[in-house]
Amino acid sequence: MGNPEQGPSVAPTSFTMGRALVDEVHQTPVIALIVFVPVVLVLERTSPDAHTLLFLLSVVAIIPLAALLSRATEAVAAKTGDAVGGLLNATLGNLTELVISLAALQAGQYLLVKASLAGAIVTNTLFMLGGAFLLGGLKHHIQEFNRINARFQACLLFLATIAVLVPSLISEVDHPPALEVSQKLSLGLAILLVVVYALGMLFSLRTHRELFASVSHADDHEKTWPLGPAIIVLLVVTLLVALVSEIFVGSVQVAAEHLGMTPAFVGFIVVALVGAAAEMTTAFSAARADRLDLSVGIALGSAAQIALFVAPILVLVSYFVGPEPMTLQFWRGAVTMMIVATLAAALLSNGGHGAWYVGVMALALYAIFAFTLFVLPPAAPS
Amino acid sequence: MGNPEQGPSVAPTSFTMGRALVDEVHQTPVIALIVFVPVVLVLERTSPDAHTLLFLLSVVAIIPLAALLSRATEAVAAKTGDAVGGLLNATLGNLTELVISLAALQAGQYLLVKASLAGAIVTNTLFMLGGAFLLGGLKHHIQEFNRINARFQACLLFLATIAVLVPSLISEVDHPPALEVSQKLSLGLAILLVVVYALGMLFSLRTHRELFASVSHADDHEKTWPLGPAIIVLLVVTLLVALVSEIFVGSVQVAAEHLGMTPAFVGFIVVALVGAAAEMTTAFSAARADRLDLSVGIALGSAAQIALFVAPILVLVSYFVGPEPMTLQFWRGAVTMMIVATLAAALLSNGGHGAWYVGVMALALYAIFAFTLFVLPPAAPS
Amino acid sequence: MGNPEQGPSVAPTSFTMGRALVDEVHQTPVIALIVFVPVVLVLERTSPDAHTLLFLLSVVAIIPLAALLSRATEAVAAKTGDAVGGLLNATLGNLTELVISLAALQAGQYLLVKASLAGAIVTNTLFMLGGAFLLGGLKHHIQEFNRINARFQACLLFLATIAVLVPSLISEVDHPPALEVSQKLSLGLAILLVVVYALGMLFSLRTHRELFASVSHADDHEKTWPLGPAIIVLLVVTLLVALVSEIFVGSVQVAAEHLGMTPAFVGFIVVALVGAAAEMTTAFSAARADRLDLSVGIALGSAAQIALFVAPILVLVSYFVGPEPMTLQFWRGAVTMMIVATLAAALLSNGGHGAWYVGVMALALYAIFAFTLFVLPPAAPS
Repeated sequence: MGNPEQGPSVAPTSFTMGRALVDEVHQTPVIALIVFVPVVLVLERTSPDAHTLLFLLSVVAIIPLAALLSRATEAVAAKTGDAVGGLLNATLGNLTELVISLAALQAGQYLLVKASLAGAIVTNTLFMLGGAFLLGGLKHHIQEFNRINARFQACLLFLATIAVLVPSLISEVDHPPALEVSQKLSLGLAILLVVVYALGMLFSLRTHRELFASVSHADDHEKTWPLGPAIIVLLVVTLLVALVSEIFVGSVQVAAEHLGMTPAFVGFIVVALVGAAAEMTTAFSAARADRLDLSVGIALGSAAQIALFVAPILVLVSYFVGPEPMTLQFWRGAVTMMIVATLAAALLSNGGHGAWYVGVMALALYAIFAFTLFVLPPAAPS
Repeated sequence: MGNPEQGPSVAPTSFTMGRALVDEVHQTPVIALIVFVPVVLVLERTSPDAHTLLFLLSVVAIIPLAALLSRATEAVAAKTGDAVGGLLNATLGNLTELVISLAALQAGQYLLVKASLAGAIVTNTLFMLGGAFLLGGLKHHIQEFNRINARFQACLLFLATIAVLVPSLISEVDHPPALEVSQKLSLGLAILLVVVYALGMLFSLRTHRELFASVSHADDHEKTWPLGPAIIVLLVVTLLVALVSEIFVGSVQVAAEHLGMTPAFVGFIVVALVGAAAEMTTAFSAARADRLDLSVGIALGSAAQIALFVAPILVLVSYFVGPEPMTLQFWRGAVTMMIVATLAAALLSNGGHGAWYVGVMALALYAIFAFTLFVLPPAAPS
Repeated sequence: MGNPEQGPSVAPTSFTMGRALVDEVHQTPVIALIVFVPVVLVLERTSPDAHTLLFLLSVVAIIPLAALLSRATEAVAAKTGDAVGGLLNATLGNLTELVISLAALQAGQYLLVKASLAGAIVTNTLFMLGGAFLLGGLKHHIQEFNRINARFQACLLFLATIAVLVPSLISEVDHPPALEVSQKLSLGLAILLVVVYALGMLFSLRTHRELFASVSHADDHEKTWPLGPAIIVLLVVTLLVALVSEIFVGSVQVAAEHLGMTPAFVGFIVVALVGAAAEMTTAFSAARADRLDLSVGIALGSAAQIALFVAPILVLVSYFVGPEPMTLQFWRGAVTMMIVATLAAALLSNGGHGAWYVGVMALALYAIFAFTLFVLPPAAPS
C-alpha cells in the first residue's frame, strides 16, 4: 500500500499517468477502448479508403477520449478554484462536440454540423433525461427532486433553444431569405448569444452559484488528478480528439451511405450520443444513487450550453474556417424535434417526481425521432 | 323489497337484464335513447337512401350503447379482480371510438378515421376538461386537485400526442414523403406505441397503481352487475355498436353534405363527442361532487389512450381491413389542434386549481376549433 | 399647506388642473414631454411633408399622453366604486393602443394594425416581464411571487392568444383561404372573444376578484385626482392621442422607409413600446419594490386584454371604418413570436421565483425578435 506512494518520486509524470490510466480503466471501464485510438490512426495511413471501417473505429475511439477529457476538465477545474474551475467546466463541458463540429465545419459539411447541434440538444434532454428517469426509477419507486432549480433551468433551456431557432422559425415558409440575409441574421444572433452566455456564467458562478451547487458536488468523493498531469491530459486528449474527428468526418459520408444512413442521421444520433457519452455516465449513475437533481442539472445544463455557446461559436468560427459562413438555418424536422424536446424537458422537470415510465416515454420519443430520421432524412442539403 | 331478490331464481338472465335496464334508465336517463337502435336498424332495411335521417338516428342510437358499454366494461372489470379488471377497463374504455373507426376504416374513409382520432384527443382535453372545470366551478368557488398526478398524466399525454404526430410534424413541409415511406414510418411507430402502451399498463396497474388509484374508485358506491350478464351485455352491445356504426359510416358522406358539414367536421366533432359521451357523464358528475382529480384523470387518461392504443391499433388493423394501409399523416389543422389541446391540458392541470372561467376559456377554444373546421375544412382528402 | 386647498374655490378647474399637471410632472417626469404635443400639431399644419420629423415627434408626444391617460383612468376608476372602476380600468387599460390602431385601421394600414397587436402581446410578456425580472433581480437576490395567480393568468393568456391565432394556425399552409372565408372566420371569432372577455370581467371583478386583488392595490398610497377633472382629462387626452395618432399613421410609411424600417417593425416594436410605456413604468417600479406579483399581473393581464378585447374590437370596427373588413390572419413570424412569448410567460410565471438572469434571457429573446424583424420583415402585405 505504501510503495506506490513512493514510486512517483522516481519517474513522476509518465509513471503517475500510466497508473492513473490503469486506475481510470478500473473506475470507468469504457476507457479501455482507448486502444482503438492508435488503431484508427494507423489504419487511416495504411488504408485511407476503408471508409466504413475507419468510421466505425473512429466512433469507438472517440468514446474513451471523451471520458478522459471530461475527467481532465474536472480535475483542472477542481484545482483552479471555484470561479475559474466552474468557468472551465462549463466551457469545456461540450469540448468533444465542439472539436468534432469544428472538423466538420472545416470540411464544409454544414448539414453534419447542424444535425449534431440539434441532435445534442435532443439527446441531452430526451435520451439523457429519459435514461436517468428509467435507470433511477428501476431502483427507486418514486424519485423526488428539487423542482425550483429544475424549473429554473428548464426555463433557461427553453429560452436558449428558441433563441437559436429564431432564424429557422421566422423565415422558413413566408419567404426563404437570401443567403446573405440569413448569414447576417445568424451572425448578429451568435454575438448576442455569446453575450447572454457570458452573463449566464456570471449568474451561475458568481451571483447565484447556490442554485447550481449540487452539480459541482458531483465528484467530491472521487480522487482527482494533480494539476500538471491533468493539463497535459487535457491538451493531449484534445489533440487526439481532433485527429480522430478528422478521420471521422473524412469517412462519414461514404461510410454512412454503405451503412444505409444519411449524414443527418449520423450527426443527429451518432455524433450526439458519442459527444455526450461521458456526461451520460455521470447523469445515469447519479440517478441510480437517487440524486436525480444532479442528473437533471447535467442534462439541462449541457443542452443549454449547446444552444448558447457551441452553436454561436461555430457560427463565429465559420467566418475563418471552411468554405463560407454557416447560418443557423435548421431544417424543419430538426426545429420541431428541438422544440418538442425542450418542452418535454420543461414538463418532466416541472413535475419534480421521477418514475421509470416517464423515462420510457422520453426514450420512446427519442427512438421515434431516430427512426423517423433514418426512414425520412431531410431532403435539402440544408 | 324482498321479492325482486327472489325473482331472478326463476328466470334469471332475461328478467335480471330487463330490470337492470330499467334501473340503468333511472340512473342514466340517456339510456332510454336505446329505442332508436331498432328504429335505425329497421329503417336501414326499409329506406337505405334516407341518408340524412339514418345519419342522425345512428348518432342518437350510439349514445345509449356507449353508456351501456361503459357500464358493462366497469362491471366485468370489477368482478375480474384488480389487475385483469384494470386492463379491461383501460383497453375497452374507448371501445365505441374503436368500433366506429373500424367501420370507417373498412369503408376506406381514412379522413373520417383520422378526424375522429384527432377529435377524440381534442374533445377529451378541451371539452371534457373544460366542461368539468365549468360545471364544478359553478358549484364550488375554487376547486383544488392533486397536482402531482395531474401533472404526471399531462406529461404522459404530451409525450404520447407528440409521438403520434411525429410523421406529420417532421415530413410535412420539407418534402411530403412518398406513400410507401409514410406507411413504413407509421407501421414502425404503431408497433412502438403499442409496446409503450403495454408498459404503461404495467406501470399504472402494477408498479405504480397508487398514482392512478382515484380513478378506479369512481364507481365504488354504485351497484355493479353480476359477471355473466355483464359479459353478455358487453358482447351484445359491441355487436350493436358495430351494426349501427356501419349504418353511420354508410350514410355520413351524403348526410354531411346535406347538412352542410364535411366528413372532417363530423369525425372531429360528432364522432368524438358521441364516443366520449359516457366518460363525459362520469367526469362531469365527479366535478360537481368536487372530485376534480377524478375528472382530470378520466379526461387525460382517455386522451392518452387514443394516442397510444386506438391510433396504432387502427394502423395495424388497416393492413388486414380496408383498401390500403392507413398512415398516421394528419392534416395540418388537426396537428395544431392536438398540440394546442395537449399544451392547454398541461397548463390547466399544472395549476392544480379549477374555477369556472378556466372552463369557459377551454370550451371557447373548443368552440373556435369547431367553428373553424365548419367554415374551413381540410382541403386535401388526407 | 392650507392655501392650495382654498385656491380651487376661486378658479377651480383650470387652476387645479394646472397644479395637478405640475404635480404629475414631478411624480412622473416623462409627462414633461407633453410640450411636444402642440409642437407636432403645429408642425403638421406648417410642413405636412416633413414625414420623418412628424413621425419621430408624434412618437415622443404619445408617451406623456399615454401616461396621463393611464393616470386619469385610474382616477376615474378609483372614484366610481370597485365594480365600475375595475371595468373601466380593465377596458381602458390599453386605450392608447386602441386609438393608434383605430387611426391605422381608418387609413387601411392593416399590416401596421396587426403588427402592433402582435407586438403588444410580445412586448407585454417578454419585454415587460423580462424588464421587471431584471430590474427587480438587480435589487433583490431571489424574488418569490404568488405562483397560483401567476399560473392562472398565464394559462388564461395562453388560451386567449391561441384563440386569436386560430385562423392563422389552421389555414396557412393547407390552403390559404379565400378572403371572404377568412373574414367570416374572423368575425365569428371576434364575437366569441368579446363574449369570453365579458365573462372574464365577471370573473375577475365579481366572482373571483380576490385572485386579482393585488393589482388594484397598486396605487393605494398615491393621491388620485377628483372625479370631474379626471373625466375631463380622460376625454381631452383621448382626443389628443387620436389627433397625434393620425399624424403618426400618416407619416409612418414614408418615415419608416427613410429610417430603414418597415411598417411591420414600427408596429411590432415602436407602437407596442409606446402604447405600453405607462404600464411598464408601474410594472418596473413594482418589481423594484419587491412586488413581482403585481408586475406579473400587469404584464399578463395587459397581454390577455390585447388578445381578448383590443383585437376583436378592431375586427368588429373594421366593418364600419376603413376600406374593407380586417381579418385575424397574421403572418407566420408574428404567429411564432406570439406563441413563443406566451409559452415563455407560462414557464417564467410557473417558477414562482425571479432572478436577474431570467430577465436577461427574456429581454434577449425580445431583442432577437426585434433584430429579426428589422433584418427580415414579412414579405406579403398581410
